Amino acid sequence: MSAKRYAIIGTGAIGGYYGARLQQSGCDVHFLLRGDYDDVNKNGLVVESVDGDITLPQVNAYNNPVAMPPIDVVVIALKTTQNHYLQKLMPPLNDGAVVLILQNGLDIEAEIAQMVPPENIMGGLCFVCSNKVGPGHICHLDYGKIQLGAYSAANQPRSLTTAMLEIAADLRKANISIDVTEDLFMARWRKLVWNVPYNGLSVVLDATTEELMADSRVKARILTLMTEVITTANAWADHLSKETGSTRQIPLTWATSMLVATTRMKPYRTSMKIDFDEGRPLEVEAILGNPVRAAAELDVAVPEMEKLYEQVKVLSKKN
Amino acid sequence: MSAKRYAIIGTGAIGGYYGARLQQSGCDVHFLLRGDYDDVNKNGLVVESVDGDITLPQVNAYNNPVAMPPIDVVVIALKTTQNHYLQKLMPPLNDGAVVLILQNGLDIEAEIAQMVPPENIMGGLCFVCSNKVGPGHICHLDYGKIQLGAYSAANQPRSLTTAMLEIAADLRKANISIDVTEDLFMARWRKLVWNVPYNGLSVVLDATTEELMADSRVKARILTLMTEVITTANAWADHLSKETGSTRQIPLTWATSMLVATTRMKPYRTSMKIDFDEGRPLEVEAILGNPVRAAAELDVAVPEMEKLYEQVKVLSKKN
Repeated sequence: MSAKRYAIIGTGAIGGYYGARLQQSGCDVHFLLRGDYDDVNKNGLVVESVDGDITLPQVNAYNNPVAMPPIDVVVIALKTTQNHYLQKLMPPLNDGAVVLILQNGLDIEAEIAQMVPPENIMGGLCFVCSNKVGPGHICHLDYGKIQLGAYSAANQPRSLTTAMLEIAADLRKANISIDVTEDLFMARWRKLVWNVPYNGLSVVLDATTEELMADSRVKARILTLMTEVITTANAWADHLSKETGSTRQIPLTWATSMLVATTRMKPYRTSMKIDFDEGRPLEVEAILGNPVRAAAELDVAVPEMEKLYEQVKVLSKKN
Repeated sequence: MSAKRYAIIGTGAIGGYYGARLQQSGCDVHFLLRGDYDDVNKNGLVVESVDGDITLPQVNAYNNPVAMPPIDVVVIALKTTQNHYLQKLMPPLNDGAVVLILQNGLDIEAEIAQMVPPENIMGGLCFVCSNKVGPGHICHLDYGKIQLGAYSAANQPRSLTTAMLEIAADLRKANISIDVTEDLFMARWRKLVWNVPYNGLSVVLDATTEELMADSRVKARILTLMTEVITTANAWADHLSKETGSTRQIPLTWATSMLVATTRMKPYRTSMKIDFDEGRPLEVEAILGNPVRAAAELDVAVPEMEKLYEQVKVLSKKN
């Protein structure tokens, strides 16, 4: 592994899981916590994982980022609803430090691009079922892959730098499956094809993925939402490439593949549904609001997405 | 960079170019040569490159792989027409050594998979215009990206290992643009969408890419060939995924994108045309024969590809 020093900003289901794997593989990892600080500082982290349990009786825990040593890789594992705090949560940085954002949704890099140069920002889309069940106690239920891509402020394809490839190697060595994409922008859209219908509808209809798929009318609504997301994504692909039929396009078959894949999944409570049930703020803007606004910008009609956005927004405020 | 030791098997347009970049960035590189051995052993390598010239007055040159020190990364940069020599050209290997095959075409890993475990084999598709203009003298004219992917004997998607990601980081640090794919099999097909028509027709019609594109009937033939390649690739994607409309599919728009990209390129003599003009064996099986046989295996009709394969085969024998 490299000699890079990692900071995990937000030690919950995502940050706790990946941070623990990194530390166990021998990386120098520093965890930022808030409510769980005392507990984790005293007792460390426990991860019950389908890929092998991890017990770390001692971790470098902080409740103040300023106390951290200079960091090479800042892993942002907060919910996007907390991104306005990021300025206050950044640790001291070494030269050439890279920020890895483990968050879903669209247009979420803006805050971070004000703090570090855009060319040092990397997005990581997490395909993982992981829950925090108590302070410093994570349950990793399924999957675990991270899809890595370099951020481009202009949403153009971009190759990973050497530093980013070294980080990819560290993650892989920590037993985390890694996929690398040259097109983070379109990868985000591909993930939204799943997140928009399932996250949104699971909250509005109070249902697991299995329950959503069992109702043929809901299933039709899911397919319509997926088609709207793909249409918007492809309009942007064309717009950014300035040519029709850009190779960045998502095929419509992606929607049917997602439907098939979801039918095969274990019954699953989406992350937005878990947040809703726990009374936490919903990632409504990153997952629904920003895609809806992206569609409006290019005059793409997305009536189902708009309706879902409004419904979730109302429920989110009630929460 | 990593402490890995590289062997370049075949120090021509591809191996000479990438090997020189690796050595200049500080990697420990060992070059295997045949006809140019005396010259390179005495005078080293010179690369005139659009990305900055490289002069290496001294390199580790060998005319016998057995004389090489134990190697971590074996870079195969021969033409596929010479792959039957590979057994005799392999250097001593360190534990966990990785083979990186910088060759185009289909089904070219078979020989190598008999010598090292399949999970230690990586393919690299080179998007580069590079010529050897004299012994140890390379001209790098344009592009340079390598698309890396892990080999799967079953042609399934596969993530890169840690060692492979470290190699990717070494290459990137050597100023080589790197793209990583999880699906080497489909990446090979995507590259064949270009290579089949342009390599084949440039030989049969004695033409540069520009000349091919200037004739509307030839252009129509190119589009038909591209469509045949895509149809075959997608039949394999479905066959291997056991579902129709697999997400591994190549969209038909890929063909039009390739046409547009080629129109924008500088007039270009394909690698097969250069081989033909120089009286060297043509990579007719890797580029044309194997795709035609792959189509036959799934009963996909590819009349234009078959015709082109037969025409090139005849010319290749005359050569």
